[in-house]
Amino acid sequence: MQIDGKAQRTIWYDGDQRRVGIIDQTLLPHEFKQVWLSDLDGACDAIYSMQVRGAPLIGAAAAYGLVLALFEDPSPENEHLAVQKLLATRPTAVNLRWALQRMQRSIKDLRGSERVAQALLCAQTLCDEDVETCSAIGDQGLGIIKQLRQEKQQNQTHLNILTHCNAGWLATVDWGTAIAPIYKAHNEGIAVHVWVDETRPRNQGASLTAWELGHHGVPHTVIADNTGGHLMQQGLVDLCLVGSDRTAANGDVCNKIGTYLKALAAKDNQVPFYVALPVSTIDWQINDGVSDIPIELRDPSEVTEIWGKTPDGSLQPVQITPSGSQAVNYAFDITPARLVTALITEKGIFEASPEGLASLKVLISDDLVAK
Amino acid sequence: MQIDGKAQRTIWYDGDQRRVGIIDQTLLPHEFKQVWLSDLDGACDAIYSMQVRGAPLIGAAAAYGLVLALFEDPSPENEHLAVQKLLATRPTAVNLRWALQRMQRSIKDLRGSERVAQALLCAQTLCDEDVETCSAIGDQGLGIIKQLRQEKQQNQTHLNILTHCNAGWLATVDWGTAIAPIYKAHNEGIAVHVWVDETRPRNQGASLTAWELGHHGVPHTVIADNTGGHLMQQGLVDLCLVGSDRTAANGDVCNKIGTYLKALAAKDNQVPFYVALPVSTIDWQINDGVSDIPIELRDPSEVTEIWGKTPDGSLQPVQITPSGSQAVNYAFDITPARLVTALITEKGIFEASPEGLASLKVLISDDLVAK
Repeated sequence: MQIDGKAQRTIWYDGDQRRVGIIDQTLLPHEFKQVWLSDLDGACDAIYSMQVRGAPLIGAAAAYGLVLALFEDPSPENEHLAVQKLLATRPTAVNLRWALQRMQRSIKDLRGSERVAQALLCAQTLCDEDVETCSAIGDQGLGIIKQLRQEKQQNQTHLNILTHCNAGWLATVDWGTAIAPIYKAHNEGIAVHVWVDETRPRNQGASLTAWELGHHGVPHTVIADNTGGHLMQQGLVDLCLVGSDRTAANGDVCNKIGTYLKALAAKDNQVPFYVALPVSTIDWQINDGVSDIPIELRDPSEVTEIWGKTPDGSLQPVQITPSGSQAVNYAFDITPARLVTALITEKGIFEASPEGLASLKVLISDDLVAK
Repeated sequence: MQIDGKAQRTIWYDGDQRRVGIIDQTLLPHEFKQVWLSDLDGACDAIYSMQVRGAPLIGAAAAYGLVLALFEDPSPENEHLAVQKLLATRPTAVNLRWALQRMQRSIKDLRGSERVAQALLCAQTLCDEDVETCSAIGDQGLGIIKQLRQEKQQNQTHLNILTHCNAGWLATVDWGTAIAPIYKAHNEGIAVHVWVDETRPRNQGASLTAWELGHHGVPHTVIADNTGGHLMQQGLVDLCLVGSDRTAANGDVCNKIGTYLKALAAKDNQVPFYVALPVSTIDWQINDGVSDIPIELRDPSEVTEIWGKTPDGSLQPVQITPSGSQAVNYAFDITPARLVTALITEKGIFEASPEGLASLKVLISDDLVAK
């Protein structure tokens, strides 16, 4: 996307200095700062601390993390250690595993410096493909928005879309997943307005999605996570569009904590609830998402403290709980397939069911299947 | 309840100085500060700014606000003006209207200083009755907790109860509504643990409920509002207990924004969802809560900024959204009666339905019916 008129991706390679550029997303929306990753530890820290986040971007960052490790030592032993370290950073997003498997396959028969060159090429290809994939997801979702807009053209000045967390271009290399169709619709002049769930505890909606949409000129309103049910009950939401960190082979969707609650409200109010995801986000080994997808437990301080900008302009955390109270911080939840209207992928729109996923699987190459 | 070993109510009258004491709840959990209201404007500000909040406490504060107005001018004209001003502070809680109607009825045939003395007596009685009422709600709810505890005794070390917002003693004169049964259970040695919803945007759960429970020694864990659905799906919630700001004659429940989402999750996971409320919270004139209960819209800054304690110990707001992004702030939502297991009142436990409410109405005196 464009930032201040300049094309910008969330991750890029600087060949001159053999380093990887990212946007430090923990500083948004208050500060737009590009930082450099120059070794494996830096890449792991960036993923764990959520300077980069979002399933597709985590995959891309892990791929580059492996490249940086191989720069130092291209041996299979070091490759193995680096992969283990990268896999441990975030347990839920399956793209991380998928991206690393793809990287490892691409270099498995090579030696020495050939391994490094091939790994770099693979990481760059993976990023370029992510941009194409997300653009294709946008095109697929655009059809849904166009049809809904047509249905509601007579009674509404615009279409209201609710989204949770950040599944925009900041969560991918470019375009985004759930937000890609919104950008495409806006670019075509379709009047859309986005309800942006704040998304506690890390506020990716209030900080990242709102920032993205604002920079692209898309009308939007930030709401507390508690608000979506009321809006749907009052007829103020026409469509829910969210992303996914891992989708099971039965159509169960793992996404940011709170997604399940919005899906329940959508069902209760007959609001279509779509999940947009690249095929690489599907975990074909898991047939029951509710019971089998591991849910990341993060630091309780993300619940007890909130980062933001103080009146004097500094970025600081404020404590919101009593000092003696404990907190727990589950990062994701599972939306059962029965609550999902359909899955929007780069390969088309599929029913969230074992049958729907099976009909998708036959269309895709082995490279896209996380194992 | 006891604060540092001393009995404490949320509101009290200081006869020597003809003023009303409250706890400034906007400073909790970081600072426990008692402040004084000495005139009508002070009382209105305290209600609007949420130094006092919670439907029953709003009613009590409004009653005392009218007393303070009558101290200055006991005329019916001034009474009328004061009532209008108090009614305008918060539009959703029906107790405010109910308390003022009761105050007005008590003085309507009196003159001059008799009006003042009677108004004061009525406000004090109203407060004392609120304490009795909440204690009775606690006793009614205790039965439910005891039965659930017995059912789950074999497999669990304790009972997990989820609550939203603050319906504890800070929301009433003492004891609380939804939390009263929890205090009674804890006092009887029943092992309970409370999941405390943070309750954005004003964080009454994280700041008030957690503080209350901590001071009373009740085990609890603060969670982001997004988390309850996941916990219920994983079998980690045995019971939901919430309060109500207004309940319609058909059993629809208006409560803090986000309550509806938790009720949906409870239904989806067969978790009992009880609403605890004094009978004075029922609006007998409204037969369809979803369409007819007015929902307060508060300042968007409560969404875009969060107050808390900075590392240097000062209380400050931090901005969490981009400066160009707008926000909207609905304070309440409606949980349809079909999602409510039952209503816990001081008069017993009733089905959330027109029939259930009708069977309750025949038990109560005219004084308890908001008109």
